[in-house]
Amino acid sequence: MKKIRLVLTGIGNLGQRFCRILFDKDAQLQERYGLRFVLVGAADSRGAAYNHKGLDLAEVLLLKATGGSVSKYGEGGRPGWSAQTLVEFAEADVLLEATPVNLQQRAEPGLSCMRLAMRHGMHVITPNKGPLALAYRELQALAQTQRVQLRFDGAVAGGLPAINLGTRDMRGAIIERIDGVPNLATGFVMDQVAEGTPWEEALSRARLEGVLDGDGAWDLEGWDAAAKLVILANAVLDIPATLDDVSRTGILGLTPAELAAARKRGERYRLLACAERQPEGDYRLSVAPATLTPQHPLGALGSKHMAIRYTTDIYGALTTIIEEADPTPSAATMLRDLLDIYG
Amino acid sequence: MKKIRLVLTGIGNLGQRFCRILFDKDAQLQERYGLRFVLVGAADSRGAAYNHKGLDLAEVLLLKATGGSVSKYGEGGRPGWSAQTLVEFAEADVLLEATPVNLQQRAEPGLSCMRLAMRHGMHVITPNKGPLALAYRELQALAQTQRVQLRFDGAVAGGLPAINLGTRDMRGAIIERIDGVPNLATGFVMDQVAEGTPWEEALSRARLEGVLDGDGAWDLEGWDAAAKLVILANAVLDIPATLDDVSRTGILGLTPAELAAARKRGERYRLLACAERQPEGDYRLSVAPATLTPQHPLGALGSKHMAIRYTTDIYGALTTIIEEADPTPSAATMLRDLLDIYG
Repeated sequence: MKKIRLVLTGIGNLGQRFCRILFDKDAQLQERYGLRFVLVGAADSRGAAYNHKGLDLAEVLLLKATGGSVSKYGEGGRPGWSAQTLVEFAEADVLLEATPVNLQQRAEPGLSCMRLAMRHGMHVITPNKGPLALAYRELQALAQTQRVQLRFDGAVAGGLPAINLGTRDMRGAIIERIDGVPNLATGFVMDQVAEGTPWEEALSRARLEGVLDGDGAWDLEGWDAAAKLVILANAVLDIPATLDDVSRTGILGLTPAELAAARKRGERYRLLACAERQPEGDYRLSVAPATLTPQHPLGALGSKHMAIRYTTDIYGALTTIIEEADPTPSAATMLRDLLDIYG
Repeated sequence: MKKIRLVLTGIGNLGQRFCRILFDKDAQLQERYGLRFVLVGAADSRGAAYNHKGLDLAEVLLLKATGGSVSKYGEGGRPGWSAQTLVEFAEADVLLEATPVNLQQRAEPGLSCMRLAMRHGMHVITPNKGPLALAYRELQALAQTQRVQLRFDGAVAGGLPAINLGTRDMRGAIIERIDGVPNLATGFVMDQVAEGTPWEEALSRARLEGVLDGDGAWDLEGWDAAAKLVILANAVLDIPATLDDVSRTGILGLTPAELAAARKRGERYRLLACAERQPEGDYRLSVAPATLTPQHPLGALGSKHMAIRYTTDIYGALTTIIEEADPTPSAATMLRDLLDIYG
């Protein structure tokens, strides 16, 4: 039995769901892979908990479910600690970085936590798009220098293995284009408005369903899709793209009448993220709403679907669609990444 | 630059397309991966060619394109040799086994070639379903003993990375069900007949398009889909299934009237391969034609599409669809497998 020590920064929706998965699957993972994952540290916005023998996942989950902070954890609660302090102090094998995206604050504290962890020789797994969109090349270079792995299969299109498909299964191909619907919130909101729900109510419902956070600008203005496209461009296409390279149009310019008219024609709007290979070999990156006929390969996506389509020279065109009734698949990508490292 | 020596048994449609890919991509593969793949031996039904310095792919392709045998190859043609003789004699790193399925002949000569190659310490890559469907456990055990890799991503659903998705990206999950349309010929033929084409003509067109071989029984009676399901069950679900475990119904019992009626309702028939997890944890395996509404996750597949859908406890439901205009993606899986081993 191999023991793997984990530190988790950010215990929001994804972080809690990941703890739940680890709690439920402990026996299965030990039996099937001979691996015992032990959460030794966790940090939320109000403090941290650290115990080198391992934290009790049930207690962590109960604290969070009742609106508390892990800093109140029984044997190891650390009220004053930031996420960075925890990562600095912890003796662990892997950092799971699941703090909010926070692009306004230069992707902090996620970016600092990732740098610190790698400098301490820890692998980093993250569904957090912020640090990757801002500093992909720097982080990958650091991972290489430190001989650790940086994995982020959950950063693009939730539980859909978009990065794995692109980096592993498309090897040897020239990728002619990537077309994706990597953002859940915009599709959900546009479907609601197309059916006659007022914008504000559609946004409220999206928040209730857990597909939209905060004021919604990150999703609705296309930043989320653009960040995911930047990550795909770097990881899969191996081009040093940044957010500035993406021509970005959000969905806020669409009128309810346009959305309803498309629906009446049997079509649906989706926020499409595209990378199109140019004759010179570089790629044009764009995010913009598009109206899709049912015949379009991404034209039958439901409100809780995301998709990625790779069009290549030798592997044909490959479309992968995920249905996420709730964010569990997105959280589960951290387990997928762990098993990619250790399994 | 690392040199990898390949032997190819079977130079039919897939084998020739693979040679073409290798020919076209030689420079790209050297540059991107530092790998030089050298075909040192090849065998067709009339003989073989072997040259330890490497065969000229252009000459091999020209011989085959003009209806000749590789045994007529200039420096290294071996008229009397069987595929097994070539594998026995060749000094190589990888066997690419692409002879026909041939279940009537106990999957020979493929099965013998694979055993021989592994005993000689070669990795084996194959899109050939026959040996895997008949002797999966034996071949995997041999690979383990010999410390070589047995890869077969092209054996299920052509260029769609069905095995890779199931074995790598579903790790840690309980797979509730697999639903697949892994066979191209049946969908193509049923679509034609639904549109009013007589059966015999539909079969001729399928042969012309290269999606149907021989008398068609292998595809139309559901053997091909059943073999692919057996391979998925073994590789992904880790159950020692054989063809006897699959409840199998082909498409020959369907009438043109039934197919046309479904089409009129806006539905389409597909030969579905299913593995359904039972309450006790075992799986029920079946292959049968089903009529799918456009709302069904596999209900919008075109005549040249194949698909696999994994429904899991933690990764949601993941549907992957491939469009293969011609068999190049199926042939390209041998490159994908090579890069999985060496890339």
